[in-house]
Amino acid sequence: MTGTAKNWKLVVAYDGTDFHGWQMQPGLRTIQGELQEALGRVTGEAPLPQGSGRTDTGVHALAQVASFVLEAKIPAENLVLALNRTLPEAIRVVSAAQVPEGFHARHSTVAKTYEYRIFLERSRDGKNGTELSRLICPPFLARYVYPFPWPLDLDALKEAARHFLGTHNFLSFAATDPDLATRGTEAAVEDEDGVPQKNAVRTIFGSEWHRQETPDGPVLIYRVCGNGFLHHMVRNIVGTMLDAGRGYAPASTIPAMIAAQARSAAGPTAPARGLFLHSVEYGD
Amino acid sequence: MTGTAKNWKLVVAYDGTDFHGWQMQPGLRTIQGELQEALGRVTGEAPLPQGSGRTDTGVHALAQVASFVLEAKIPAENLVLALNRTLPEAIRVVSAAQVPEGFHARHSTVAKTYEYRIFLERSRDGKNGTELSRLICPPFLARYVYPFPWPLDLDALKEAARHFLGTHNFLSFAATDPDLATRGTEAAVEDEDGVPQKNAVRTIFGSEWHRQETPDGPVLIYRVCGNGFLHHMVRNIVGTMLDAGRGYAPASTIPAMIAAQARSAAGPTAPARGLFLHSVEYGD
Repeated sequence: MTGTAKNWKLVVAYDGTDFHGWQMQPGLRTIQGELQEALGRVTGEAPLPQGSGRTDTGVHALAQVASFVLEAKIPAENLVLALNRTLPEAIRVVSAAQVPEGFHARHSTVAKTYEYRIFLERSRDGKNGTELSRLICPPFLARYVYPFPWPLDLDALKEAARHFLGTHNFLSFAATDPDLATRGTEAAVEDEDGVPQKNAVRTIFGSEWHRQETPDGPVLIYRVCGNGFLHHMVRNIVGTMLDAGRGYAPASTIPAMIAAQARSAAGPTAPARGLFLHSVEYGD
Repeated sequence: MTGTAKNWKLVVAYDGTDFHGWQMQPGLRTIQGELQEALGRVTGEAPLPQGSGRTDTGVHALAQVASFVLEAKIPAENLVLALNRTLPEAIRVVSAAQVPEGFHARHSTVAKTYEYRIFLERSRDGKNGTELSRLICPPFLARYVYPFPWPLDLDALKEAARHFLGTHNFLSFAATDPDLATRGTEAAVEDEDGVPQKNAVRTIFGSEWHRQETPDGPVLIYRVCGNGFLHHMVRNIVGTMLDAGRGYAPASTIPAMIAAQARSAAGPTAPARGLFLHSVEYGD
């Protein structure tokens, strides 16, 4: 960074449906690529914004954080307005701020929170499950929820969520990379940025379900906060909890799934479109 | 209709963003075209579903009604499930029912209700308008609202809405077709289905604004119910009310705009994406 260059922190919301995830890829529409191009149009510079972590295709963000260095002198409010004028509406810059030189959106992360949203096509509470209209996921929600086709027991989901609290080895909930797997179990796990991890131990600070009414019907929301996540970890935890919620595998078996430290011991991967990066915490 | 054929009424919700409106057009993705193809895949027949009226590109529906005749014997619930399995998720069949032979989705209409949704990028109530985050339309709302860039006075909107109640000649609020216009004022107006109308007199039963909280921020919603609407009529009424709400043309001038019976006397056309066909009433 030269003497005049400034380090920036951007908070960004996006609808991930029509993008190939966060990370720039040649010839594909990505959030990182769109942001870099927009910065280029606005400032004449095109630094590659570093995200707090990658998000996969179809995953959304309420408040992704990105950092980059700019030579241009531009007031923060003007940068926000100018970027939003040129970005597609599916990507919105929520705020921009100059930050100390040492700040890095990924390396400085202290905790991250994800949300997973489910539309209940059938519920166990009362007769709703027999009403045909309850079977239909409204088109205005379809991009932002997993329309779940089986009845779900909210109490079982809540019990399942509690088993993930605390510090565990999450190998059973990490996407396995076939290339890495041939080199042995220890290297077969990646973090959200595709970096091979020697260890899969992470701490979960919060893990809970709640039901929220929306103009288009009730949605079940899972919120999980941790000091870090492995690739696909939230979606694998959700898929496992949904097995418990529908009575397919009791919540009480989850500690054994964790202890097994094997992907095959846990449940399926929930679809990307229900997942939102909710917020990223820094030590500031 | 042969002796065995049945008349059907379908209620359909759709996100109009990625379609070229309701009406079938060769080579373009339309709601009517998608429904006809889905009926063909499910029943082997492909009747053209008749809608309660056209909706333009980008306009949504919470409960559009379509009618058609089928030879196939299929329980209503199975028809709904089978259609939803093959339709794109942006189009959902909410219900299906066999109806008497005389029912026609358009001709049998008694009243229609539309909604128009606005995201307030700046509001007049309090200091919110100065908060940068209030300027950002969340990407999860952007397809379904008009993000309005000026402060709006809800009381002025409510006053404006009252002026449209009752029976009026709505020529000032009808899209003008340049081809028809050359043949004289009387024929220069179309209904929602592009049918030239000798008269533009319509009765508005309800016309009101309310503010609704959503998980992504407050939205202003206009709901209007009438015995019929001319092409672009709701969007022209909304554009005119927004002029009043932002203090550009007082609500008290609306009666004179109506009396002028000239499109140039009224306000601009509000964008399609904020408009929802809310419901269609029949005499049943």
